[in-house]
Amino acid sequence: MRERPLILVTNDDGVRALGLRALVEVLLPYGELAVIAPERAMSGKSSAITVETPLRLKETEIAGLPVYQCSGTPVDCVKVGVNHLLKRRPDFVVSGINHGSNSSVNVLYSGTMGAAVEGALNGVPSIGFSLCSHAPDADFSCATGWVARIFRAVASNGMPSGVCLNVNIPEGDISDFEICRQTTGRWVEEIISRHDPAGKEYLWLAGEYRNLEPEVAGTDINALDNNRVAIVPIQVDMTAHKMLAQLKNWDI
Amino acid sequence: MRERPLILVTNDDGVRALGLRALVEVLLPYGELAVIAPERAMSGKSSAITVETPLRLKETEIAGLPVYQCSGTPVDCVKVGVNHLLKRRPDFVVSGINHGSNSSVNVLYSGTMGAAVEGALNGVPSIGFSLCSHAPDADFSCATGWVARIFRAVASNGMPSGVCLNVNIPEGDISDFEICRQTTGRWVEEIISRHDPAGKEYLWLAGEYRNLEPEVAGTDINALDNNRVAIVPIQVDMTAHKMLAQLKNWDI
Repeated sequence: MRERPLILVTNDDGVRALGLRALVEVLLPYGELAVIAPERAMSGKSSAITVETPLRLKETEIAGLPVYQCSGTPVDCVKVGVNHLLKRRPDFVVSGINHGSNSSVNVLYSGTMGAAVEGALNGVPSIGFSLCSHAPDADFSCATGWVARIFRAVASNGMPSGVCLNVNIPEGDISDFEICRQTTGRWVEEIISRHDPAGKEYLWLAGEYRNLEPEVAGTDINALDNNRVAIVPIQVDMTAHKMLAQLKNWDI
Repeated sequence: MRERPLILVTNDDGVRALGLRALVEVLLPYGELAVIAPERAMSGKSSAITVETPLRLKETEIAGLPVYQCSGTPVDCVKVGVNHLLKRRPDFVVSGINHGSNSSVNVLYSGTMGAAVEGALNGVPSIGFSLCSHAPDADFSCATGWVARIFRAVASNGMPSGVCLNVNIPEGDISDFEICRQTTGRWVEEIISRHDPAGKEYLWLAGEYRNLEPEVAGTDINALDNNRVAIVPIQVDMTAHKMLAQLKNWDI
């Protein structure tokens, strides 16, 4: 009998997040799950790794399934899983379901996508799933059918080395899905300055997202705006290949 | 009289690192410097941002120049500089000089490059510099002439929106420079397990880098191995454009 696929499941909202529980429930029929997730919320941790301090693991459970909570980042969870906890190489790394969109430039800051990129770096077919709602009690029921469909498609097609999928799911009624690219945009920050009871200043990062190509077909935000699941292939190679020739003409 | 260019300088080794001091000294003749650097070592912080806690700033100095130290990540430093501290938009973001190589896949985990990518996202010509030595007392004298040459080339050519430079500098005798691409490689991790005095397990990330295309011309590691400064253009768009067509043929 063929061994069941081993699926490493993680997220960046932490081991107690509803989105992780929803993902575990969707994936249970498809293989043996190894859940290793951050013990605390790790939003915005990107591909950060822990180098200055050691890591701690603790066993807990979700829906009766034994899971590990890790003191580190989502990428640490994948590294500890692949290189320490798991007895064999995982067949898939699946991260999420994130509470909040990781479309456009958010893919860069996202810990959910950091974990998926780390899976791809290890040559494991990997997907990051996000629901476009930041609510801690968000309703994931609109997302779970799509998570299963997209997971099955990755399982049957495989993924090229060094590429993973960034899947963003709109809230509510979903009309379809779309294969698209990362929208060009950025955060226009506002730094909020306050004073603590001792009179010392502290700052909060805040701001709003600015879409630099609104209503452009083929972009992930446009897909979401039209109630479609946005599926973007994400690569590990950050080289701006188009600029190589131009740079070679510089006088340095 | 034309205003002098405003250069935002940061790093990921922290405000007291020798590499930051070396960078400041090289850049002083080229403009007005605004130094905003992490108060502690922030190696491996990638593009992480601080969302769960507020940030603190403190004024200090390097070589008589007033500088800010920030409790956050390198990307936080750029955000706080651009959106809060600086009276005008910086003309350049320069990050480093990092203690240790950020070639190949290390660009993904690097806080030094996180800051440069953040500059590029803000439409500011940005460069991350790294010296291929992890020694805290590394000798940056071989690097400084190249830092100046490459900075001047960026100042005179400009940079396309959404692209920055990842510059890695070999230690010792340098023969030349090379425009190249990110080498394909990955870390083969070893997780070190130890026990604390209370008998509880803790883990350290460790391991070694594996070059998956050794001695391939045109890659950054090959350039460094041949004593050349490696200059790689790095882009913000993570879409795997080549995979879009293939994905559209999937049955999802």
